[in-house]
Amino acid sequence: MELLSLPPLPRVAICGGTHGNEMSGVYIVREMQKRKVDQSGSVSITTVLSNPPAVEACMRYIDTDLNRCFTDALLSAPVTDSTPYELRRAQELNAQLGPKGSNEAVDLLFDLHNTTANMGMCLIFYSLDWLTLHIYKYIQSKMTSAPVRAIQLDIAASEAYSLEAVGKRGFAIEVGPQPTGVLRADIYNMMKEAVDFTLEWLQKFNSGSIFEGGEVEAYAFEKSVDYPRDPTTNEITAAIHPQLQDNDFKLLRAGDPVFLSFSGETVKHEGEELYPFFVNECAYYEKKIAFHLAKKVTLTFPSVSVKKD
Amino acid sequence: MELLSLPPLPRVAICGGTHGNEMSGVYIVREMQKRKVDQSGSVSITTVLSNPPAVEACMRYIDTDLNRCFTDALLSAPVTDSTPYELRRAQELNAQLGPKGSNEAVDLLFDLHNTTANMGMCLIFYSLDWLTLHIYKYIQSKMTSAPVRAIQLDIAASEAYSLEAVGKRGFAIEVGPQPTGVLRADIYNMMKEAVDFTLEWLQKFNSGSIFEGGEVEAYAFEKSVDYPRDPTTNEITAAIHPQLQDNDFKLLRAGDPVFLSFSGETVKHEGEELYPFFVNECAYYEKKIAFHLAKKVTLTFPSVSVKKD
Repeated sequence: MELLSLPPLPRVAICGGTHGNEMSGVYIVREMQKRKVDQSGSVSITTVLSNPPAVEACMRYIDTDLNRCFTDALLSAPVTDSTPYELRRAQELNAQLGPKGSNEAVDLLFDLHNTTANMGMCLIFYSLDWLTLHIYKYIQSKMTSAPVRAIQLDIAASEAYSLEAVGKRGFAIEVGPQPTGVLRADIYNMMKEAVDFTLEWLQKFNSGSIFEGGEVEAYAFEKSVDYPRDPTTNEITAAIHPQLQDNDFKLLRAGDPVFLSFSGETVKHEGEELYPFFVNECAYYEKKIAFHLAKKVTLTFPSVSVKKD
Repeated sequence: MELLSLPPLPRVAICGGTHGNEMSGVYIVREMQKRKVDQSGSVSITTVLSNPPAVEACMRYIDTDLNRCFTDALLSAPVTDSTPYELRRAQELNAQLGPKGSNEAVDLLFDLHNTTANMGMCLIFYSLDWLTLHIYKYIQSKMTSAPVRAIQLDIAASEAYSLEAVGKRGFAIEVGPQPTGVLRADIYNMMKEAVDFTLEWLQKFNSGSIFEGGEVEAYAFEKSVDYPRDPTTNEITAAIHPQLQDNDFKLLRAGDPVFLSFSGETVKHEGEELYPFFVNECAYYEKKIAFHLAKKVTLTFPSVSVKKD
């Protein structure tokens, strides 16, 4: 059996409130800060409330979406008086937790998000990373309160735009459904469990446990679908169809209803069979995304253990 | 049998977007305006998007909650440069649809709202009004897609603070659960049905139908309960307990769990048995309301028909 030896992961950052109205992460981070949790066995933990003014205002962002500001280009853009708040904050966070792509960056950064979509518990990551897949498999094997899934975005590191890209490794933990501005105990507990299992895995890994390889299923992003819109006003003319609403990750086949227009007409899915996710996410109306579509893929990964000095 | 003759109700106002991020009403009003619906049989209809800048920004309000601005005192307050936008807008709406308490006011004003609470379809009204109870009973007998309930607030007309108080008669149609900023087809259709049944009732009433009296159940507001909070920071220290979450209108008995603190302790309901509603409504965090409590009451009302000229 192939066994991959990898360096330990002693420095971890846990971030919440990157979107100021996604409440589970805000309260998990606040609670950890209140309890001064900065160490978990072999792991030193930095907790960060990413966008405090947006949290204060209970809005996704103040000037622009912070979680789209971590591309190489934006992180090195000169700051002027007219620079949006979030771009300045992104550069601060990059200095604190990165710099992105450097040896000084935290070993693992995970960022806590909520969605209004019925997605259960998802790990979202950019590139294929074996350690992330191990953590995913570990959470999946331990959690019983919700389905646990992985979503893979295929974006080059330089173009990776979200906060977790600042760490040497990183992923987003996305849990829903939860309305923005609302804190649900069930969703909070689910996210807290995922955080605790991640820290547990890190401690086991750092202290020499061998994690066996295997394979997992993941959803690989294919494309986004916008709402039908009025060509003149650009306003939406339909809502997500009741048969698609709340059915994230349920295979969409050609002919399945996807939208119901305000005048009562059904719009159907066309083309290949794909899996919908982020169905009716609140914040994606302005991004012109009604839902994403993914292919299901099987990812194989080797056994891993920590590299001994 | 007692039969009450009442004047016809020829002028109706249907309002949406009083809270700019409650999407069902926004889209129902926009659709009616697009289709130029201004008449339904004997009923002339005015459709109003109450807070256009808040709708544009997809926020509840710009400066202050518009739906708290319709007290007699605020409607007659002098307007200066520092007057909040919504107070000015309230006076505009009062001029257009009222004035409140006058003979020129529309005969019926109903205002379309959403909540993040699992309240199904609710009619909310201030004082005991027989026509409103008839409309409630009519909707309840026709709708099959959701439970239909009535909530009675006991507030004097001069102190009545919400938009529907501007009409000679009025009520709010409150439908949930729906996240703010999200449009769900099921909730949209439910609200649309209630609007259509209300218009249908008005036409029947105006054209001479006799509606038999009877009795209905309603929930009479008793008091509000705030979240447990940190006395220093004022931040909440607990979420609605999973056993209360989504259980609006399910009788709360002494000892039933109501909050689950972030450190895992359960807070229990104390005192008399009451019915919770608006449980975990997004917009009520800032108002320091975790949920309201009500008594169930039975309201009796006479048969009614239109007064012939």
